[in-house]
Amino acid sequence: MQIPERLQKQLEFIIEIDKVKHIFRKTQLIDGSRHENDAEHAWHLAMLAVVLYEYANDPKPDLSKVIRMVLIHDLVEIDAGDTFIYDEKGNETKTAREIKAADRIFGLLPDDQHDEFRQLWDEFEARQTPEAKFAAALDRFEPVLQNYHTKGHAWRKHNVKSEMTLRINKHIGEGSETIWQYVQHLINDAVAQGMLEE
Amino acid sequence: MQIPERLQKQLEFIIEIDKVKHIFRKTQLIDGSRHENDAEHAWHLAMLAVVLYEYANDPKPDLSKVIRMVLIHDLVEIDAGDTFIYDEKGNETKTAREIKAADRIFGLLPDDQHDEFRQLWDEFEARQTPEAKFAAALDRFEPVLQNYHTKGHAWRKHNVKSEMTLRINKHIGEGSETIWQYVQHLINDAVAQGMLEE
Repeated sequence: MQIPERLQKQLEFIIEIDKVKHIFRKTQLIDGSRHENDAEHAWHLAMLAVVLYEYANDPKPDLSKVIRMVLIHDLVEIDAGDTFIYDEKGNETKTAREIKAADRIFGLLPDDQHDEFRQLWDEFEARQTPEAKFAAALDRFEPVLQNYHTKGHAWRKHNVKSEMTLRINKHIGEGSETIWQYVQHLINDAVAQGMLEE
Repeated sequence: MQIPERLQKQLEFIIEIDKVKHIFRKTQLIDGSRHENDAEHAWHLAMLAVVLYEYANDPKPDLSKVIRMVLIHDLVEIDAGDTFIYDEKGNETKTAREIKAADRIFGLLPDDQHDEFRQLWDEFEARQTPEAKFAAALDRFEPVLQNYHTKGHAWRKHNVKSEMTLRINKHIGEGSETIWQYVQHLINDAVAQGMLEE
């Protein structure tokens, strides 16, 4: 079989993105047994999008686009690594590192798919559209859930305070007012239970 | 905050499905460093669906439905475990075990979402619609790719022969003729390279 160049490029991308399964995040799985990787995280966000779609703010985002967005949003971390949301120094250089990674990784695809994926990722990063706002809300919600269920693992380990948590997660409300209400409830409860410092 | 019963159920489901990250499959990651779990597998299938959609047979499936199908297709393994595709004994009891699991796991959701997810899963299992055929093709394609790139790891470990591989994977052609051509090419090459016995 002569593999067409287009298919060859697509397969190369598919093989390359397997590496995202080796990029570990700061948060742990719900049972606290180990850290979560980016492929698991992306899968869980896609499930959150499907299950919690009814709580997306109006105007309602296109669910299918939200799902594609969350599926690819962390692929750049194959090159750029995971930057902890509370790491101010790391976040200064994050954008430049991730843009370089997007160029290389999405650049493996045929041109039309490169453009499609790159646009999706740029849109997610800019957080201006209903789809990007809802995707970003889910991207913040999952680690709060995980921290809450692992007695504040990443919060305690990295000395994160409740005021910081509220500030960093505030934009959840731009994607879903309901989820933001619930996140504030979890954060307050985490403080009350001593798993997050005031 | 008084959590509405509906949201409570949805959150319970979202927490429960975290367990699928602990269900390990027979195949290894592309770099051969460890086995893959079901959450990573589901994520990779969703990516395959997006990238290789143009190769789905006519009539073209609804991509958004294919993605939702692959995202949830292995949730039943939280209770039923992973049944190796070449394990004839395990496959005799697989259906009964998985139906029981579907009842419990999708049953955590509010009724309308239970019905939606259960229908999607039943449709995937029956493999009659264009969506289910394409989803099933991807579900077979990923482990072939992984076995090929790990020098036939699961094939050699479980004494799988090329004739069996061709028989078990034949229905890939019902979802995508192009992917099936490519899979046959990989299997023949695997035999030629001595990573799969004839």
